[in-house]
Amino acid sequence: MTDYDTVSADVEHEEEIPEDHPRYQDLLTRHRIEKGVEKGITHLQGMHAEGRGSAFDYLLGEATIPSADDAERAAAAHLLLADHPVLSINGNVAALVPSEMVALAEATGADLEINLFNRTPERIEAIADHLREHGAEDVKGLEANARIPNLDHQRAKVDEDGIYDADVVLVPLEDGDRAEALNEMDKTEIVIDLNPLSRSPQVADVPIVDNIIRAVPNMTEHARVLADEDEAVLRSIINEFDREAALEQAEDRIRSGEL
Amino acid sequence: MTDYDTVSADVEHEEEIPEDHPRYQDLLTRHRIEKGVEKGITHLQGMHAEGRGSAFDYLLGEATIPSADDAERAAAAHLLLADHPVLSINGNVAALVPSEMVALAEATGADLEINLFNRTPERIEAIADHLREHGAEDVKGLEANARIPNLDHQRAKVDEDGIYDADVVLVPLEDGDRAEALNEMDKTEIVIDLNPLSRSPQVADVPIVDNIIRAVPNMTEHARVLADEDEAVLRSIINEFDREAALEQAEDRIRSGEL
Repeated sequence: MTDYDTVSADVEHEEEIPEDHPRYQDLLTRHRIEKGVEKGITHLQGMHAEGRGSAFDYLLGEATIPSADDAERAAAAHLLLADHPVLSINGNVAALVPSEMVALAEATGADLEINLFNRTPERIEAIADHLREHGAEDVKGLEANARIPNLDHQRAKVDEDGIYDADVVLVPLEDGDRAEALNEMDKTEIVIDLNPLSRSPQVADVPIVDNIIRAVPNMTEHARVLADEDEAVLRSIINEFDREAALEQAEDRIRSGEL
Repeated sequence: MTDYDTVSADVEHEEEIPEDHPRYQDLLTRHRIEKGVEKGITHLQGMHAEGRGSAFDYLLGEATIPSADDAERAAAAHLLLADHPVLSINGNVAALVPSEMVALAEATGADLEINLFNRTPERIEAIADHLREHGAEDVKGLEANARIPNLDHQRAKVDEDGIYDADVVLVPLEDGDRAEALNEMDKTEIVIDLNPLSRSPQVADVPIVDNIIRAVPNMTEHARVLADEDEAVLRSIINEFDREAALEQAEDRIRSGEL
């Protein structure tokens, strides 16, 4: 993990990271999270979580494996078919893929809702501003006038006309307790997480084991391709997706991969 | 990785983390690094590196595997036999194991030297103070009046009567470039790193693939047990240690482990 340090910590703008660097994606990710912490968007522990994710991504070969691509396509189909799809945004998601989440929301007609584990008014505001700077028009999560059942008060806050009402939710990099509680609300839950054995992907209807910076643009791409398809086609994509097989393939890749 | 978040970020003192928590070691490690960042001891990127390490530790089963114990014993023998052993301290090491490094220095007669990748006078001072609070009497690395050859100026700074002069150096969580440059200086190099394929353990004479919070106290324990042994016994421990086998065993454990 220490080889990471061989690129200077002094990069001020992400354009300074050479695109042909063998660790480009990883350096970009780390840089964005670091900026997120500096801006008050990302909790300090988000830097730790990102480091943890980067180790799993390294073991995955820093690539979208075929089962992850299948999951991203099925997720796009779910979002397109939903009555009320919502994309949940936490501090790491906002730091890493703000414009990409806005694009996915536009491609699928989904709402964006800020949903923080370590919730403070300052962080909520900073993230809402950050999303608006990246093109978001309507940002939910500021009201927090409903609660997810079976979670402690502070962690349970959501918008009544947002996540609480949603039939399909995308919760990237989500805490296990909350992923489980959302699942019990009978929503279709899509999770993005690099550790296939984390509780969040384990409970998800569609577990995506991939780096969020690859997963979200790929979901948007699938959504654009599928936008004009009949409901029957979308349903068959959803039915063909095998969540158990996807989790297994990710675990196999990590075990037998290029470590 | 997100399951980590289920312990509150609001723990103010490490005593508040329940010792019987299944992730006690990991939570303790994360807490100490977080405090280190707050105190100006640890660079923000140290939080990322620690997260990365924690994923590898998870794959190792969060245990000292037999080959790591062998490596820690061989490392203790090297330090005891050295003419001038030096223990290198960076921001993560200072945050994670300050009193443990002081104890290892005492058990082996080694010097402690602060040696930072992102060197600023403020961080040097904060780390020196932190080590003194944890019992260190003499702290090197403040002079920085010598240079490791083949490294850029800023990264190469060491003390002439410290790392520059040492015959055996312990460099935990070291950057790959510096590990390589130190190795080329014909020193016996002991590295602690959780990723067996990182460049630092790959170039080390004694690669220790273990969590530093387990490795350092275990080295001290070995040093105390071996303190009265003859030179011949220490030499045989060193000769019997097989670095290639240790790296392979760590990689096998990560691949086939309890992921």
